[in-house]
Amino acid sequence: MAGLLDLSMREVAAAIRTKDVSPVELARLSLERIAADEPRINAYARLTEARAMAAARQAEREILAGHWRGELHGVPVAVKDLYDMAGLPATCSSKVRHDHIAAADSACVQRLEQAGACIVGMTHTHEFAYGIATPTTGNPWNTAHIPGGSSGGSGATLAARGCFMAMGTDTGGSIRIPAAVCGTVGLKPTYGRVSRVGIASLSWSLDHAGPLARTVGDCAVTLGALAGHDPRDPGSADVPVADYTAELELGVQGLRIGVPRNFFFDHVEPEVAANVRAALALLESQGAELVEVTVPMTDMISAIEFGLCMPEASAYHRSMLRERADLYEPDVRTFLEAGMLIPAVDYIAALRQRTLIQAAWATMFDGLDALIGPAVAAVAMRRDQPTITWPDGVEETASGVYVRLSAPANVTGTPSVSVPCGFGQGGLPTAFQVMGRPFGEARILRIARAYERATDWHTRQPQR
Amino acid sequence: MAGLLDLSMREVAAAIRTKDVSPVELARLSLERIAADEPRINAYARLTEARAMAAARQAEREILAGHWRGELHGVPVAVKDLYDMAGLPATCSSKVRHDHIAAADSACVQRLEQAGACIVGMTHTHEFAYGIATPTTGNPWNTAHIPGGSSGGSGATLAARGCFMAMGTDTGGSIRIPAAVCGTVGLKPTYGRVSRVGIASLSWSLDHAGPLARTVGDCAVTLGALAGHDPRDPGSADVPVADYTAELELGVQGLRIGVPRNFFFDHVEPEVAANVRAALALLESQGAELVEVTVPMTDMISAIEFGLCMPEASAYHRSMLRERADLYEPDVRTFLEAGMLIPAVDYIAALRQRTLIQAAWATMFDGLDALIGPAVAAVAMRRDQPTITWPDGVEETASGVYVRLSAPANVTGTPSVSVPCGFGQGGLPTAFQVMGRPFGEARILRIARAYERATDWHTRQPQR
Repeated sequence: MAGLLDLSMREVAAAIRTKDVSPVELARLSLERIAADEPRINAYARLTEARAMAAARQAEREILAGHWRGELHGVPVAVKDLYDMAGLPATCSSKVRHDHIAAADSACVQRLEQAGACIVGMTHTHEFAYGIATPTTGNPWNTAHIPGGSSGGSGATLAARGCFMAMGTDTGGSIRIPAAVCGTVGLKPTYGRVSRVGIASLSWSLDHAGPLARTVGDCAVTLGALAGHDPRDPGSADVPVADYTAELELGVQGLRIGVPRNFFFDHVEPEVAANVRAALALLESQGAELVEVTVPMTDMISAIEFGLCMPEASAYHRSMLRERADLYEPDVRTFLEAGMLIPAVDYIAALRQRTLIQAAWATMFDGLDALIGPAVAAVAMRRDQPTITWPDGVEETASGVYVRLSAPANVTGTPSVSVPCGFGQGGLPTAFQVMGRPFGEARILRIARAYERATDWHTRQPQR
Repeated sequence: MAGLLDLSMREVAAAIRTKDVSPVELARLSLERIAADEPRINAYARLTEARAMAAARQAEREILAGHWRGELHGVPVAVKDLYDMAGLPATCSSKVRHDHIAAADSACVQRLEQAGACIVGMTHTHEFAYGIATPTTGNPWNTAHIPGGSSGGSGATLAARGCFMAMGTDTGGSIRIPAAVCGTVGLKPTYGRVSRVGIASLSWSLDHAGPLARTVGDCAVTLGALAGHDPRDPGSADVPVADYTAELELGVQGLRIGVPRNFFFDHVEPEVAANVRAALALLESQGAELVEVTVPMTDMISAIEFGLCMPEASAYHRSMLRERADLYEPDVRTFLEAGMLIPAVDYIAALRQRTLIQAAWATMFDGLDALIGPAVAAVAMRRDQPTITWPDGVEETASGVYVRLSAPANVTGTPSVSVPCGFGQGGLPTAFQVMGRPFGEARILRIARAYERATDWHTRQPQR
């Protein structure tokens, strides 16, 4: 039965639907696998076994009675330790919130459970999602390396086949970075597409909720369950929800894919760049038209990202910082205290620059179906290696290396999906990302799926 | 012929349409009247005689040829000296911009001229719209008193019958304050209803463009010409434009009007309060149902208004402040330099509080057609009287007195129309305001018009 955990969500869902797989047995398998791996990986802040088993038993009853809810029904999944689950601790992997119990379920947890998912646990995040290392957690490909972050636990448990989908959040890349360095798929939807009610905020104008999963199709199915307007979230968009699986298998014949001539291939490890170029060549061989594109205003991206994120995070943490500053880890405390000092006029300048870059990107996407570049510039870094020195002598911190290429989709609010595309230094996974126009998730998922279908990277897993 | 200038825009438009009034003659009359009054009132930063006469001659040709464009066609109007007019100085009544020539017409000027209006001049503003005194200009009811601001020149020229409509801008009350203290009507539309492209910004998230005019109907007609989505203005709303005159004459029978039991009648001159109560009684006698309402979160309004306006203004002025600080008037320079020091976390707190108050006001308007309170707490103050001391000993600055009751509609983005309702201390005009739900301009104009039709305040004018 252990091979069941190697299936994708859509594959296991088909077996659940036909009653060939019992949700109760599957949830037990998932929890056993997680328990076996935790000493090595430590992907979870806590397991939610009772809640998972209750959901699994209910799913089993319903499906035996002929009521199958869809492809999440009876499937073990996880959520990042930023998502409220009623009555359970919501610690954001921080000592600051050690005593915090959620009063209600977050909107995403509600929607996942309405779809029949069995939530087996809450995955580790870099403290309050404010970092890319997730130092609690090991990368299953090599536990001496980081799993990325901030949704590091979600990436790690998927790589280790602990469950079939794990929710992340993405403010500067925190879904796509762990997905990329753990060799799994990660989807940051359009800003406003998925409700953030009941999720601890890092930076409200940049925060996105979305899934990490083994395959593109699993992300599409999950997005279908999560997407929709929620007036309780001020950033939520009242835009119709598409069928995200409808065009998934249609291939890339005739689609126009932008290939950046600037920014996205600067200061990138050669193996990463080569693998992404090979992926582009594969898509071209399948009929896509590659179009060279100059990506506009790239020199503003980091300033906008940090100029918005730092003060918004400090505003959110203001009272906790006053009362419990000593309980923060030093890196997060420093960021939060620095953010208190940023003047409003600089924040407002960043807001205005964001409006300009959004308009420039909208123009760039005229006549393009997608833009593809590396998801991250480097494979998973060693836990004890906080910087990279590039061949031209430029030294860059880990957060710079990882956030630099993912932040454009946060700043512009465009959807982006990270897709595994082989291995680089140390045998560690590499990935590209497919970015698209706002609310065009169906199109970028189709392109990602065309690549995935022609390759086997998503089936590779670390040795146990 | 001089009596023509005492007509409302809609009245004179009817006579233009039937060719009983010549647009060319009317424009001359308007310019002569303005020239006669300028030594006493100084309402205009500059006259735009050539452009007005060209428009008047074109209107005359078109109307004689049977092509009447609507109720603005051939009508003399003015715009505040914040609205760009191509090739003309755009000084914002400031020495800082003494050398600034507009490259293109603002969106409102374009729309007004497309509707056939003849722009006779650009009216004085408090420097950069950042104040309520408009010290350049005298109030026609008593030139020892201020005309209000920041659209003081627009209020003054309407009271003096210089033209039929004058555009203002309203960030904390700058349309409704001069309208109220000059005894004319002023409409601040919903946030996003009228494009601000080509208007100098004070505070982009609070700025509104809108008309001052002699009657409610004239404001309705003007809004019809101005309203519409403009993707070049990031705050512009893509919401259908209503017919703002359709329900204007339908009366108030059966409409539910909220009467604030808190905030709006605190620290208000007794004559102002009595006149507003009398207006409410008149509306009740016409069939409106008065409903006592507790207005939510009123203690946050000033903090939100200034917490947003000050840093946004400083951000806009940042480079000018660096290069030309000595050219600002001392009051505006102080505000701008203070705004540079506000931390982003405080600005973000104000943004969040605004979201909360907008939601609370939306709930308040459930089951209400409008909310009515005083437009301003006091009649026009003397130029040499910068504060009021209330009977309980509380001393309040002029900007506090005036902005306090108008700012709620800026902070919430709701539409508000100021309507003259008699006279108070010193024989100076008083006014109430009708606030409504976002994009509900047609309803508040209808209520305002019902009052206006039953009274003659809008026909009263200062002695010449």
